[in-house]
Amino acid sequence: MFRFAEIGRQIAKKDYEARLPELRANLLDLQQELRQANFPVILVLSGDDRVGIGETLSILHEWMDPRYLITSVLEDIEDGENPEYWAFWRNLPPKGRIGIIFGSWYRQTIRRGVKNPEQAAALDQAMARINFFEKELIEDGALILKFWLHLKKSELEKRMASYANQEHAPWLSLQDERKILRLYDKGRTVIERVLRGTSTREAPWRLVEGADPRYRNLSVGEFLRDELAARLKAAAAPPEPPAPRPQKLREKYMILGTLDLAKRLTRPKYERQLHEYQTRLNVLLRKAMERRQASVLLFEGWDAAGKGGIIRRIAAAMDARQYRVIPIAAPTEEEKKYHYLWRFWKHLPRGGRVTIFDRSWYGRVLVERVEGFARRDEWDRAYRELNDFEEQLTEHGILLLKFWLHIDKDEQHRRFREREKTPYKQYKITDEDWRNRKKWDEYEAAVNEMVERTSTEIAPWTLVEANDKYYARVKVLRKFCDELAEKLKVK
Amino acid sequence: MFRFAEIGRQIAKKDYEARLPELRANLLDLQQELRQANFPVILVLSGDDRVGIGETLSILHEWMDPRYLITSVLEDIEDGENPEYWAFWRNLPPKGRIGIIFGSWYRQTIRRGVKNPEQAAALDQAMARINFFEKELIEDGALILKFWLHLKKSELEKRMASYANQEHAPWLSLQDERKILRLYDKGRTVIERVLRGTSTREAPWRLVEGADPRYRNLSVGEFLRDELAARLKAAAAPPEPPAPRPQKLREKYMILGTLDLAKRLTRPKYERQLHEYQTRLNVLLRKAMERRQASVLLFEGWDAAGKGGIIRRIAAAMDARQYRVIPIAAPTEEEKKYHYLWRFWKHLPRGGRVTIFDRSWYGRVLVERVEGFARRDEWDRAYRELNDFEEQLTEHGILLLKFWLHIDKDEQHRRFREREKTPYKQYKITDEDWRNRKKWDEYEAAVNEMVERTSTEIAPWTLVEANDKYYARVKVLRKFCDELAEKLKVK
Repeated sequence: MFRFAEIGRQIAKKDYEARLPELRANLLDLQQELRQANFPVILVLSGDDRVGIGETLSILHEWMDPRYLITSVLEDIEDGENPEYWAFWRNLPPKGRIGIIFGSWYRQTIRRGVKNPEQAAALDQAMARINFFEKELIEDGALILKFWLHLKKSELEKRMASYANQEHAPWLSLQDERKILRLYDKGRTVIERVLRGTSTREAPWRLVEGADPRYRNLSVGEFLRDELAARLKAAAAPPEPPAPRPQKLREKYMILGTLDLAKRLTRPKYERQLHEYQTRLNVLLRKAMERRQASVLLFEGWDAAGKGGIIRRIAAAMDARQYRVIPIAAPTEEEKKYHYLWRFWKHLPRGGRVTIFDRSWYGRVLVERVEGFARRDEWDRAYRELNDFEEQLTEHGILLLKFWLHIDKDEQHRRFREREKTPYKQYKITDEDWRNRKKWDEYEAAVNEMVERTSTEIAPWTLVEANDKYYARVKVLRKFCDELAEKLKVK
Repeated sequence: MFRFAEIGRQIAKKDYEARLPELRANLLDLQQELRQANFPVILVLSGDDRVGIGETLSILHEWMDPRYLITSVLEDIEDGENPEYWAFWRNLPPKGRIGIIFGSWYRQTIRRGVKNPEQAAALDQAMARINFFEKELIEDGALILKFWLHLKKSELEKRMASYANQEHAPWLSLQDERKILRLYDKGRTVIERVLRGTSTREAPWRLVEGADPRYRNLSVGEFLRDELAARLKAAAAPPEPPAPRPQKLREKYMILGTLDLAKRLTRPKYERQLHEYQTRLNVLLRKAMERRQASVLLFEGWDAAGKGGIIRRIAAAMDARQYRVIPIAAPTEEEKKYHYLWRFWKHLPRGGRVTIFDRSWYGRVLVERVEGFARRDEWDRAYRELNDFEEQLTEHGILLLKFWLHIDKDEQHRRFREREKTPYKQYKITDEDWRNRKKWDEYEAAVNEMVERTSTEIAPWTLVEANDKYYARVKVLRKFCDELAEKLKVK
């Protein structure tokens, strides 16, 4: 495929200068229009022409209003403390902006591919992850444009020679090109494979020949203009109504109904077991710290199901510095400018630490679904997105535990009333809680479907019978202990 | 002073339980009220009673609504890549929230003091910095509450013994206490000095005896309640009008008038010198990368003074990965929830890199002053705050260069007209620019005062005669080269 980017395309200076004013005016107009639009533009700049990438970056800043361009250089962000995609998520542009990504999610994949040509399956897996990541962003509205700036081998060699005795040179980029040149033939096969495998219908690669800077600049600029204009035009049109899906749930979804809510613990038993598991957890967490084993616990459940009480009992077994509790409420204005998963990435624990999410990313298929904050197609595809997100956490080695705290409708009513009567518990009960309660059946259907579709082998749900607080607390603590012990391979 | 926290205060269980319900209800109410208020609460938890700190943290989470509490553990954030206070700024709570800071700006100061008892001046300096930092936040509205949880030596020893054979223990904290115990007598002198030196009128230390957990919990909780209630009440009252200050500027402020705007470069000279300095800069930046020398350049100037053109010429001498341009516009909704300096801290360059601010923190004493976005007392004290901020950058070793691009009123008019005529420059000229132009005299007074009051020895302003773009570009480039060369001690 590189053949088509090695034919020596050029643009004469006169033509270049004739086309430039209109292009610049267009790009600026589109940028202004984009500011009001509800999607981000993600421009991936990659290639073997490293010097060209730097120059393209500069020229885009010159042509457009740099206040609304965000450049992210992701090359040397590899801390090992976080899953690979953490840095990519953290550096996405918000809606209404153009983000230029330099050293993107392709860099590592290609590097590893060149280094380990025998690991074809690993390369396929990495490409599948890339495709899913981009699809996720595109379905959320993003416009992704990917440019591969290419120089043929002889041109690269020529450039090396021409810069050899020149002091004023983009030396970081030249260092890269030297490496690229050394591995040129070996790399070419892998790169071709990756570009082919990740040229999806929604985000195809655009190969740009880099030998002539004028041709290169205009290609990138005009392509960006045309794609952005088309996208803005399409965004102005009313969206297709998503296909209807049958509302009725099949019998097999009714998992919650199978729980035995009569399960109970007496107070003396509770106190003994609570102490026993807190002690065990404390010892295990000390080991986890030594071995840098991170954990993520998330709690979902009915209002008043006892999340806070359980979280406090777990916290009591830990050192204050080892854990963080992240309460998840409605997204802020800033968070709304990103994909809904964006805000969760930033709270992942470093090695040895514990992050406890009090409500979580499952809000997408619970409250956002039931209250209509997410469209049907949005929450429908979220199941796969959430599974993929969790897979990345567990692949990175994080222990992930998901708890659904289940109480019945009568128990909830009793607890609401009790909260209303206790002065320092009144803040926990609002009109919204009573409103939510009226939608119990809809929530129940959503929970059943969630458990069914996201109880994966790597991250199954633990359903907790929580009508009895004692029983629920001990069950969660024991589960955390058992899973952590298994992960650490201690008894 | 510790004597008063070693007298064995206790609270009986009965009393504790009697006072608790009201305290919890109060705290929750105040937390709700705080959400609408225009200030943050910063609660510093320090002390030799490490186990007590952890327990206090837990109990505060139990008593209050954890969704509006933000705990920051700053102990192990010492990356060396950023000035010391970078982490403190990044972890401040926003307005309307309570932030509990654990391992605060006191930790390092005390540690170094204990380690190097002979460096009394360094300790004094560190305390002065702390006091200024807290004052800055307080003047911006923050309520700072500082608790020192204290255990006398014999109590610490007793605790060590009691935990010795117990598995369920806050082991991270105990490790700390072991260290504290070892250095107890040596540390006591330093700690006393630090607590005395940083007990300011606005943010005094509150010593809390830790031997009895009930006494400790109630002390912290009730003190927090009382101070927060008082502050909310005061915030509801109309603020004192700030004292008037004479508007007229003294003659000596009129620095801008002394610039010779007739300075010019011919095109051939410009092109030769531009190339010369870009080449030199490129070489110097390569050295800067090797030696991890970071630079911050900031540009202020009249609208249409040519900031963008200069920045592009500097950028052309660098590798795209070495620098970032940060355009500073009006703060976002999120940024408005913090002290105005907060948003600048996050963009500081790592070692070897360059950050270019296109407009900067000086907006506080320019646009915010002239347009009335900041009150007189706010922008008046900003001069010192800005000087202090810059001192921290330069102390950390960052090369800081500040440029004011100066054109006269006629030249601006000419450039505005030209922008209106060139299609791809029209976006640069808005009604706001014409409006600002009408306030030329007020801006000029503000600029003169800014230059006068913030041209410190460590970070002087470079005034650039910019009626001629060629001259201005070369002057800036040459300045950057010269200063960087001096910093790197190369010619």
